[in-house]
Formats: sequence, structure tokens, C-alpha cells
Amino acid sequence: PELLEKMHVKKHYSVIGIVSDRTGGGPQLFSMDEGIKSTNTEVIDVEWTNDTKGGGGQGCMIVIGGYDPSDVREAIKVTFENLHHYFGDVYGNAAGYVELQYTARAAGCLTEALGAEEGKAFGIINACPAAIGIVMADTALKTAGVNIISVATPSHNGSPSNEGTLTISGESGAVRQAVIAARERGLELLGQMGDKPANDYPSYIQ
Amino acid sequence: PELLEKMHVKKHYSVIGIVSDRTGGGPQLFSMDEGIKSTNTEVIDVEWTNDTKGGGGQGCMIVIGGYDPSDVREAIKVTFENLHHYFGDVYGNAAGYVELQYTARAAGCLTEALGAEEGKAFGIINACPAAIGIVMADTALKTAGVNIISVATPSHNGSPSNEGTLTISGESGAVRQAVIAARERGLELLGQMGDKPANDYPSYIQ
Amino acid sequence: PELLEKMHVKKHYSVIGIVSDRTGGGPQLFSMDEGIKSTNTEVIDVEWTNDTKGGGGQGCMIVIGGYDPSDVREAIKVTFENLHHYFGDVYGNAAGYVELQYTARAAGCLTEALGAEEGKAFGIINACPAAIGIVMADTALKTAGVNIISVATPSHNGSPSNEGTLTISGESGAVRQAVIAARERGLELLGQMGDKPANDYPSYIQ
Repeated sequence: PELLEKMHVKKHYSVIGIVSDRTGGGPQLFSMDEGIKSTNTEVIDVEWTNDTKGGGGQGCMIVIGGYDPSDVREAIKVTFENLHHYFGDVYGNAAGYVELQYTARAAGCLTEALGAEEGKAFGIINACPAAIGIVMADTALKTAGVNIISVATPSHNGSPSNEGTLTISGESGAVRQAVIAARERGLELLGQMGDKPANDYPSYIQ
Repeated sequence: PELLEKMHVKKHYSVIGIVSDRTGGGPQLFSMDEGIKSTNTEVIDVEWTNDTKGGGGQGCMIVIGGYDPSDVREAIKVTFENLHHYFGDVYGNAAGYVELQYTARAAGCLTEALGAEEGKAFGIINACPAAIGIVMADTALKTAGVNIISVATPSHNGSPSNEGTLTISGESGAVRQAVIAARERGLELLGQMGDKPANDYPSYIQ
Repeated sequence: PELLEKMHVKKHYSVIGIVSDRTGGGPQLFSMDEGIKSTNTEVIDVEWTNDTKGGGGQGCMIVIGGYDPSDVREAIKVTFENLHHYFGDVYGNAAGYVELQYTARAAGCLTEALGAEEGKAFGIINACPAAIGIVMADTALKTAGVNIISVATPSHNGSPSNEGTLTISGESGAVRQAVIAARERGLELLGQMGDKPANDYPSYIQ
């Protein structure tokens, strides 16, 4: 309990769970969002690290709380089961990477960590090096009428990673359309800087 | 336009250009300075990233603005044409690297990004690990009468990179002499920690 | 002297020494603590870098001051002689690392850099990815009655590294016992994420 106080955890839970990784934040947060949706748990804290094992992006650490060990364990189990799914639209080559995320209905992890609106569609458009992310953001905003939640660039960001990131909310069809248009533009740009960008798991945003 | 507002861009331009990289800032900024000199464009924003593909330094992102697409395109073309030149005094080995930059006459990119004085000589003395940069800075300041513009160390810096950096201005002969003396000291120190430091392109500071 | 002023060095010394590295902070600071104990020198400044050559941790830079060149040289010599010793409880594998440090009696480097109490036992419990460090911290605090000096997580830290870190002081037996229990838990967790974590030098905390 003394440890939790020092960790800037505000509420009191009887059980705490932590998910922490070296590479990536989007897939982990979208996966945890499924975990939170299906259990009686809450996200307490999300922290970002300038890591990615030498890449230009970030790792993250998610702390969740609950009142029953089986709930917390279940939330983490659901998170891991969803990770491959949400890595489906992360494409990389030697020059950098392009990441897209989309959900028709955001829950407590995405609202807490990224300012998503509860129950509304939410999307992430992200790339390294940063300029690709910004051009993709521009494409997305020109494609469909969506709301900007945040724009992050290297110096206006939680951690000085080499990323340009746009998060959006709105009507689910519009958010999906914006994300898909940004993906097309991003893969084209990143592909011009190296090999054809490849994903490790099948794309889920159709 | 909504995107630009969120990106902390203050002035209004009709055309925007972005140069973004994984590794290095000095060569990109000095190259863009040539692009700005030769076109009707301005540097709007420079942001730093803690990247270098796993190295101890930084990458950067430069946003420029203009009123004519051909100007912005030309500025970026000139930037790319100058990159090899300004990578000429970047020397590395497995232990780290030493970077020197010098111009007899700074223009709008170096003034905006690094506080150089318009039209005056400007130099950068930089190395990783940080201690080498500091010893080089000491050598430079003992060699010639120049003005300190900034001293950056890991915790007093835009991004927590492992660099010691001195930027100087003044009479062009003095700035060049200071930079050359620092280079000699830096190559000697870095060489003691590994192989002879090597540059990928011919040195341009003579 | 103008350089030192810009470097945020407050006191005036006639001789300055700098130790700077790409990877690690604990071993360097504990080694420098021995250097400070055995000479008439003081630690002026410790800065952290988000480096580790692509790892999830930090490098550091230590600036010391003295009044006699031979003192400063001796302090740095003692530091280098102790480095292998204090790397003895740094264990790594492809997934991350676990670091433990312990001294029965902290001196001027650890007090200045990490808030240790002069002359009292002091320990560090640290791991990457961050969640391992937090579980280890929890184990340590449940094992023995020690005082928390600091808890660092990725976003509540000098630099956005992927580390969870606990520093503790107290009765020397209790601090050692807490550190040893945390080590056991950390090696177990990190081992589950990859190969058996290995140290490069013999463990010194028994």
C-alpha cells in the first residue's frame, strides 16, 4: 500500500495487475480495453517509456485495479488473447513503422489512457518517423468528418519518441474510413523509404 | 488547418513541407539552412526525438512553410543535396560519435532552431557519450574568442540524449578555429574508447 | 569557468572530473561512491540519459570537483576499479534486466545523486521492463522493515526509461535482506520471459 501511494495511484483497490512491455502501446491499450469491458476492473495508470528496443517509438506500462483476484487475472488473460489481433495493423520496415487502431466502441482503458469518449468509435493513426504520421493525419482529416482528440509530435508528447500521432473519435463509419485512408497513404510513404512494410499478424481493420 | 493549429504552428502559410529523420539533427538543420537561404520559405518548427535507431543521440523533425509549392519543394530539394556535405564531420565508432558543424553565415533555419545570429558565423560541437562533448567544449572555448550560445548536457536538453553539446557564434575565423580544435580533441578521446572514429563522407571543415 | 556556469555547477572547484557512460547508472554511482569516500572530492552533478545503446534503461554522467588534480584522478581511478564489482548483480536476457545494488554505508555520491542517507545502509532494486521492478519492490517491502527513499516508474522518473525502481535505506541487515528477496523474485519473473538471466561478473550481494 505504501508502494502504491508512491506510484501515484489514487483509488483503493484490493487487487492490482500490471502489464508492461518493451515495444508498443496501441495494441496493448486496445487489448486491455477488451479486458476491462469484460471484467469488474479499472485502469488506474498508463505510463509511456522511450524504449522499443532501439526503435523510434514507445513501450508502455498499464496498471489496473479490482476487488477480486479472479477479475484482475481474467482482464489480463483477455488482454493477452487480443494482442495479436491489435498488432494486425502495425506495419514495419527498416525505415520505421505505421500503426492503425480502430474500435467501434471505446471503454475504460482507452478513455483513461487516451481520452477516448466512452462507448464511441475511436481510432489511432501513428507512424515513425514522425513526418509520415503527420501526412497520414492530414489524409485522415481530409477523408472523413471526425473529431480530433489529440495530435502528438516528438516535442509535444509524453515521451520524446520519433512519432507523429493523431487520435480521433466520431461516427464509427467515418472513423474507420479515416483510418483506412491514412493507412493507405502511410504504407505508400514508408514503402518509398525501404522495403514493402509488413505486418506480423493479419490486418483487422477492413 | 485544424491539424496545423494543434501542431503549435503559429503563422499562416499556404504550403507546408516536413523533413523528418531517425538519426541526426545538425546535418539536417545546416542543410535546411541552405534550402531556406535560396527560397522564399521559413522554418516554422523544429522538434527533437530521442531516437537514433538505438544510438545515444537524437533525430529531428523540421516543418517549413511557404506560399508557393515550388518554393517549398525547392527548399527540400536543396536540403537533400546538402546532407552528405554536412554529414562530413560526423565521426563514429562503437563507443559513440563526434559531430562538428560550421557555417560562416547562419540563416533562418539555424536562427529559429538553434538561436544562431542571422548572418553571423555559427558552429556546433557535439559528442556522445556526453563527457566527450564537454571536454571538446572546454577545448573550443580555450582555443578562440567566441560567444557561447548554448551548452546542452543530458538533463539540460530538449530530449534526454547522451550528448554534450556547445553552440557558438562570433567572428568566422575564430568559430572555425574553435570547431577544428574541438574536433581534434574529440577524435582523440573517442578513439581511445574503440576503433579510430570514421566519417561516411569527406570532412568539409578545413 | 564560463562553461561550468552554463552547466549548472554551483560551487567553485579548481579541478573537475567527469565520468560518462552509455549503459547503466547504479554500478557507476556505487563505484564513484567509493572514489568519493577515499579522496577529498565531491559529486557536483549527476545527469541521466535515455540511452543504454538501444536498451530500456539509462546511461549517466557524473561530474566531480576537487582542489587537487591528484585527488580527482584518484577518485576516478577508484571508480573504475570498482565497476566490475558493482556490475555483479546486474542480470540480463533478451527480454530485459534486473539490477540490485547494496552498500552498508552510503557516502557523498549516493547522497547527492540518489538521496541516500550519509553513513547508512542503502539499496537499489531496479528492473526493465518496468512491471518486474514494481513486483520486486513489492517483494522487498514485504520482506523487511526498510524506509522507502524513492519509487520510480516510466513517467515518474528523470528520463522516460522502461524501468521500475525502488531505493531503500535502513538497518543494514534489513536492507540486504530486502534486496536479496527482490533479486530472487526478479530473476524468476525475467527468466519466465526468456533465457535464464545472466550476470557478467560475480554477484557481490550475499
